[in-house]
Amino acid sequence: MTNAIDAAALDQIFLQARTHNAWQPRELSDELQRKLVDIMKMGPTSANCSPARIIFVKSNEAKARLKPLLMESNQPKMLAAPVCAILGYDLRFYDHLPQLFPHDNAKAWFEGNDDLIRQTAFRNGTLQGAYFIIAARALGLDTGPMSGFDNAAVDQEFFKGTEVKSNFLCNIGYGDASELFPRSPRFSFDEIARII
Amino acid sequence: MTNAIDAAALDQIFLQARTHNAWQPRELSDELQRKLVDIMKMGPTSANCSPARIIFVKSNEAKARLKPLLMESNQPKMLAAPVCAILGYDLRFYDHLPQLFPHDNAKAWFEGNDDLIRQTAFRNGTLQGAYFIIAARALGLDTGPMSGFDNAAVDQEFFKGTEVKSNFLCNIGYGDASELFPRSPRFSFDEIARII
Repeated sequence: MTNAIDAAALDQIFLQARTHNAWQPRELSDELQRKLVDIMKMGPTSANCSPARIIFVKSNEAKARLKPLLMESNQPKMLAAPVCAILGYDLRFYDHLPQLFPHDNAKAWFEGNDDLIRQTAFRNGTLQGAYFIIAARALGLDTGPMSGFDNAAVDQEFFKGTEVKSNFLCNIGYGDASELFPRSPRFSFDEIARII
Repeated sequence: MTNAIDAAALDQIFLQARTHNAWQPRELSDELQRKLVDIMKMGPTSANCSPARIIFVKSNEAKARLKPLLMESNQPKMLAAPVCAILGYDLRFYDHLPQLFPHDNAKAWFEGNDDLIRQTAFRNGTLQGAYFIIAARALGLDTGPMSGFDNAAVDQEFFKGTEVKSNFLCNIGYGDASELFPRSPRFSFDEIARII
């Protein structure tokens, strides 16, 4: 039997963690970005398909390319964050299944089945996006996920020549807690769940 | 500055956690299912839209209704697990935005925009599905997510009369670690990510 993780860890990844919009002017090391990927990639995906692809937009040059593709209200948050990660998913994920799922011919389940490819890539790439958020928090980082941007334009600018599609953006770094709003309400258990 | 959570917690939620297919014959308390929802619901969604809806299939009667809707290879795993959660997402999530996101008229962003509704519900419902998996692990439970089932039939059987759509299933309980396969390989950082 395994016990629950300690209360401080649970607070850090879920109960007290908040989405941040304001950022301390403090760099994020490349080493920490590598650690983050090496943690989030261990989360489960169906047939280990692992479709998530990530670009960490960190330099001023890369931020300048991303900025005009965001909703105006998201631009200053992205610019102030040490790094903005573009979370994408690869529609050609199944090409890698012989490597990732070697004990079965899982590639054949997908080839030519565009609806299944699209749904599997989006579902599992999004699961991995959530693992990314939680893994960042587990490492002591703050996150600010955002979906207000021009997906097609981001695909053209950052994923050209591939079949990777952008999913959402996630600012990461060290949040400025003094700028937080009060937390928004959540549903009660009975409003969203039942045991049958 | 916040530090990383301790190594044991990180192992429990990501690095050593495994997807389980075999289950110890041990009940899962309703209290733990309530706790799980009260943790996972704290994870972030866009505009706090919180579209996930969950049915915990626990009784033999409910399992008998679910069984024929699963791929044959998934049936024994579901039957052996103490509980199989149906993770769904509500296409009418925006009706609740006045409650969940009271400081703006977010409901108006979605009304009549079916593509945005569908994409927002699926993306955020899936993020919440990942929070569910990680929250279960954080509580000391094992999980076995599955997507091999007839979604339309599950919607008809369990979500009739609503606009909730099934996303994926997740067995939860206490896994039988003796039945685990070796862990499948993961990509290296450079195969899926870059810093620009």
